[in-house]
Amino acid sequence: MKLDAEIALAHRLADVAREEIRPLFRSGVESEAKDDASPVTIADRNAEEAMRKLIEAEFSGDGIHGEEFGVKEGVSGRQWVLDPIDGTTAFLAGRPIFGTLIALLVDGFPVLGMIDQPIASERWLGVAGEPTTFNGSRVETRRCRELSAASLATTGPHYFTQGQGDVFMALAAKTDHKRMVMGGDCYNYACLASGQIDVVCEAGLKLHDYAALVPVVEGAGGMMCDWAGEPLHAGSDGTVLALGDPARLEDVLEAMGGQ
Amino acid sequence: MKLDAEIALAHRLADVAREEIRPLFRSGVESEAKDDASPVTIADRNAEEAMRKLIEAEFSGDGIHGEEFGVKEGVSGRQWVLDPIDGTTAFLAGRPIFGTLIALLVDGFPVLGMIDQPIASERWLGVAGEPTTFNGSRVETRRCRELSAASLATTGPHYFTQGQGDVFMALAAKTDHKRMVMGGDCYNYACLASGQIDVVCEAGLKLHDYAALVPVVEGAGGMMCDWAGEPLHAGSDGTVLALGDPARLEDVLEAMGGQ
Repeated sequence: MKLDAEIALAHRLADVAREEIRPLFRSGVESEAKDDASPVTIADRNAEEAMRKLIEAEFSGDGIHGEEFGVKEGVSGRQWVLDPIDGTTAFLAGRPIFGTLIALLVDGFPVLGMIDQPIASERWLGVAGEPTTFNGSRVETRRCRELSAASLATTGPHYFTQGQGDVFMALAAKTDHKRMVMGGDCYNYACLASGQIDVVCEAGLKLHDYAALVPVVEGAGGMMCDWAGEPLHAGSDGTVLALGDPARLEDVLEAMGGQ
Repeated sequence: MKLDAEIALAHRLADVAREEIRPLFRSGVESEAKDDASPVTIADRNAEEAMRKLIEAEFSGDGIHGEEFGVKEGVSGRQWVLDPIDGTTAFLAGRPIFGTLIALLVDGFPVLGMIDQPIASERWLGVAGEPTTFNGSRVETRRCRELSAASLATTGPHYFTQGQGDVFMALAAKTDHKRMVMGGDCYNYACLASGQIDVVCEAGLKLHDYAALVPVVEGAGGMMCDWAGEPLHAGSDGTVLALGDPARLEDVLEAMGGQ
């Protein structure tokens, strides 16, 4: 699959999102609560609007699924999935570890993913079958010989249900818990792709939260799946695992009690 | 108290720490476990060594208390307190939200504090009785009219004892928990000083973790204290609260059940 035009567009999408987001970082911008009570700001909305316009102009037959403005059906079997600010709470807290997420799905499976950090000018790009790049240079996940030496990341325990939290704690107990980090949203998956984190475990994610991560992580040599070990696609249940070293999958699933 | 020479030295300390830390960020640097099992790297050690040398050359009568190389007694009644990398787990995970902490204590109370983020080139400076600056420009905490609208930050629940975790959860329940952020170490206090976060609540901190934060937060209009509401000093018990709006102290302590 040749995706040169789509890759070029993804860069332009991230560029326009940066233009909308940067002036509003640490600006005292107000947030509102959405229907699910999660926060949203004018930065999220403006960035998604700017990206949608570019997609509609260039690939009018493609569907668009954005966090803030919902679904526009397409006719091509392809869908752009956008999260203008993944980690709005981090954005609102003034922490430069949120990201703009851009994915292209074909028949429901992600084939292109981009994680862009607008403030630090950091951009990870993953394309199915190609090596992942960070600001244009190839990055790779690291090997992890034993789960007990693994660093684990998750955005926060408050995003788990009670049962999911128990499963997470069972996994955490088998990793090097002194190196566990909390917070981070999409940025943890980017750091995993760059060989800095071994495992990310989350739940309750939506398609716009995880679609872009898959090509980034897998093109760097890692793997992503749901908590049952199944590949992520448009219909996944929102449980998400990322492993820098796919050889540890069995250990991770076993630590989680076969969940 | 005139501290011009000490402020100039603090800048040079942070500069040499940056030189040691930057090349090792995302470099695959190895970590070891210290006696308390927390991780340490060559970046921590090199940065502290470089800082200690400068202090010894310039203020040989001052004491030095560093996270990695312990205490050198002084004769001046003054003590420099250093944490070369506060947030070594974040540093190891490739996240640019750790910091170099530099404090000057007089008779056990912090009168100068610096939080430096080496990768993003961000520097917060607080001096007793003077306005806090971020990269040279004045910053201020924000007002918070109601605790229910407050954003709360903490590095992670795994740093609390069971009892402390219960107290934290009682506080979290009274804040806007959809805006709670985890992770961050010293960076949360810096964001609070910049008016981006309302409350930080932690426990188990050591002198080198909290000394530098106090002048930064208080010079920005906020307040810091222990969980009993008492000022922080060299003999504090490691429970720490930071409030952007001191007017919310009573509400916070009440939410924590008078702990």
